[in-house]
Amino acid sequence: MNCEFIAVGTEILLGQILNTNAKFISEELANLGINMYYQTVVGDNEERLTNAVHAALSRADMIITSAGLGPTNDDITKEVVAKAMDIPLELDDESMRRIEERFKVMHRDFNYDIQKKQAYMPKGCCILPNNNGTAPGCIIEKDGKVIVVLPGPPKELKPMYLESVRPYLAGFSKDMLYSRVIKIFGMGEAAVEEIFGEEMKTAQNPTMAPYAKQGETTLRVTAKCHEENEGKQLVEAKMAQIVERLGDVVYSTNDETLPQTVVKLLTEKKKAIALAESCTGGLVATSITDVPGASAVFAEGYVTYSNEAKMKNLGVAEDTLKAHGAVSEQTAGEMAKGLKVRSGADIAVSITGIAGPDGATSEKPLGLVYVGISAGEKTYVKELHLFGTRENVRYTAMLNACDLVRRVLSDLPLD
Amino acid sequence: MNCEFIAVGTEILLGQILNTNAKFISEELANLGINMYYQTVVGDNEERLTNAVHAALSRADMIITSAGLGPTNDDITKEVVAKAMDIPLELDDESMRRIEERFKVMHRDFNYDIQKKQAYMPKGCCILPNNNGTAPGCIIEKDGKVIVVLPGPPKELKPMYLESVRPYLAGFSKDMLYSRVIKIFGMGEAAVEEIFGEEMKTAQNPTMAPYAKQGETTLRVTAKCHEENEGKQLVEAKMAQIVERLGDVVYSTNDETLPQTVVKLLTEKKKAIALAESCTGGLVATSITDVPGASAVFAEGYVTYSNEAKMKNLGVAEDTLKAHGAVSEQTAGEMAKGLKVRSGADIAVSITGIAGPDGATSEKPLGLVYVGISAGEKTYVKELHLFGTRENVRYTAMLNACDLVRRVLSDLPLD
Repeated sequence: MNCEFIAVGTEILLGQILNTNAKFISEELANLGINMYYQTVVGDNEERLTNAVHAALSRADMIITSAGLGPTNDDITKEVVAKAMDIPLELDDESMRRIEERFKVMHRDFNYDIQKKQAYMPKGCCILPNNNGTAPGCIIEKDGKVIVVLPGPPKELKPMYLESVRPYLAGFSKDMLYSRVIKIFGMGEAAVEEIFGEEMKTAQNPTMAPYAKQGETTLRVTAKCHEENEGKQLVEAKMAQIVERLGDVVYSTNDETLPQTVVKLLTEKKKAIALAESCTGGLVATSITDVPGASAVFAEGYVTYSNEAKMKNLGVAEDTLKAHGAVSEQTAGEMAKGLKVRSGADIAVSITGIAGPDGATSEKPLGLVYVGISAGEKTYVKELHLFGTRENVRYTAMLNACDLVRRVLSDLPLD
Repeated sequence: MNCEFIAVGTEILLGQILNTNAKFISEELANLGINMYYQTVVGDNEERLTNAVHAALSRADMIITSAGLGPTNDDITKEVVAKAMDIPLELDDESMRRIEERFKVMHRDFNYDIQKKQAYMPKGCCILPNNNGTAPGCIIEKDGKVIVVLPGPPKELKPMYLESVRPYLAGFSKDMLYSRVIKIFGMGEAAVEEIFGEEMKTAQNPTMAPYAKQGETTLRVTAKCHEENEGKQLVEAKMAQIVERLGDVVYSTNDETLPQTVVKLLTEKKKAIALAESCTGGLVATSITDVPGASAVFAEGYVTYSNEAKMKNLGVAEDTLKAHGAVSEQTAGEMAKGLKVRSGADIAVSITGIAGPDGATSEKPLGLVYVGISAGEKTYVKELHLFGTRENVRYTAMLNACDLVRRVLSDLPLD
């Protein structure tokens, strides 16, 4: 079974939008074990879309298209596909009724003559109702070929695919893929490859693929299987070996982010956290409070850019700031200690550093960041040397702070 | 002149990465007035890539490819393209020298036999040095066709395109596009279309295109021109009319974000800001301090999720919290007033609301957010009714807070 994806839309060819539907559909088909050898993007042009459909029909068993189902004259996908398969369009009353109903719910004026184009469907096709928009999709089968026609907006395409198309496609697929990820912090892609390099090259089932992303490494383990349980067993057995080998740099085997892991651990251990941020300017607080339920474990946060704020809100001594500077191990330590006392939280975290582009000196270069953490009777400060843009330094500092909290909460070594 | 883009890479077909190179190249070509009618994605497979190159050569004057230039056997783009154009590859000594040098700089072991594949270039091509990676790109011209071969990683492809390919392509393009954006907050895409709808449909040069994105509206004005100055004049004249018509909902004509606009205004007016955030959890502070130079205008920030933190750090009265609740006009007002006094900042902003998914009641629904602002002797509270996910509510609340600050700093009406 092999399938091609055709995205219809001049706005993609003009670079106005990213073709995120292609990524979504590709990933879904890969998980079902359906091969995809080509993807095409073509504009809202009858001749060129017709050529693209014929080329794909000549090479593939199945085509999935996105976009071009709306009510305007630009929207030609259904018409072109039906013509290419030599099937007439006919008005589907049920689709028409649903479109009219949707207009009522949205309190929008309904014009039958304008909207009816969307309810003309290829004769004998399987109609896919659109619960998040007006234009229905469809599945057309003829002469051993299948064309799946989907709407363009991702918030319509995705649920329609998941509700109607995936179950249909699962019937075609003998093999499926079951895939899980191991999230790693504190070990780069190269180091992970050094450990598992030989196995990564030779392993057949499951396979292992590393992926590096802004300070983190992800290792994806994928098994080919006939049904989910078989894949789950294969993947989880391999994951257990990998986690055993990598040790405490693994922070999640459930595709959580570091802030999600931190909120989960805080919730489990019934601990409250307080934050004092200088160079990250609130990014750690934002990332943690972005997780639903964080309010129960978040005591308070301070953004203390200035020396005054560090003294007033955290009790950092003026002498410390004078002797060592705002970006120093001593200041980070006093920030964390002072914050712990003033907030009454179980864990207090401080960050101070130089995110750039200004403020760096030869002694304190761009990317020098101190993370302090105060828990129980202990205070620990970690010195980091980070790279990249302001955004990058801030983001990686945030990850490091979260990882330290994870380590404290899980009784793991801090360096 | 028309061009096709071919992205080579099984990882795109498997949905592991987004084809961001396609968006970048498409947008660049559109700006140069070069048409693109098709984009293709094909895997690292000789036969299928050969087919894709031949199909594109039969339809287009030019092809741009990305990826497949590395040292491994999977990397076949240059080889396939050269074969399709019937041009032999030969070792380029200068490219070899540059690759070896790069390995030295990166302190990585250099293996001549493995790396030399990257220095074999199509005979007579124009070699594009890679300043951000090892594999050079190239431009091949033959029989009236052009193929531009670029590396895959965006951090290599983009600079190589901008340094070497754009100047080359500009020579082909008779017309170029000059484009600028008007950034709008507080007026939706539909309302903008209602004002300019007729003109948007009929305008030829410059054209106007609205685009809505998470609470903001962008209006792009684009002129076709022979040289930049001509385009600039056409676009700026039209922009002046539009800004006059739209009034104070326009916050930038220089493609700045709302936080950037706020930092610019604070810097110009020499004012300091302080923030007290409940439901946004530090997002306003993060967004503002993300702008380089923000430290000079940022007094301090508080993340006060809990009632205790609101009382302790901002001086909100317990009675107020009891009588009206944490999410109320009264609490937002007291947060802003208390913050102004305690921080000594010129402008104090507070946010309290229900970002979800929990915490909503029938009286205080999800998305109910109050933004308070205290400046000079005045305190103003704005009630917002926001929609969408937790992330969406928090993000739109942040934009609203920034817009209120902009309005206060520019002496514009607050509602």
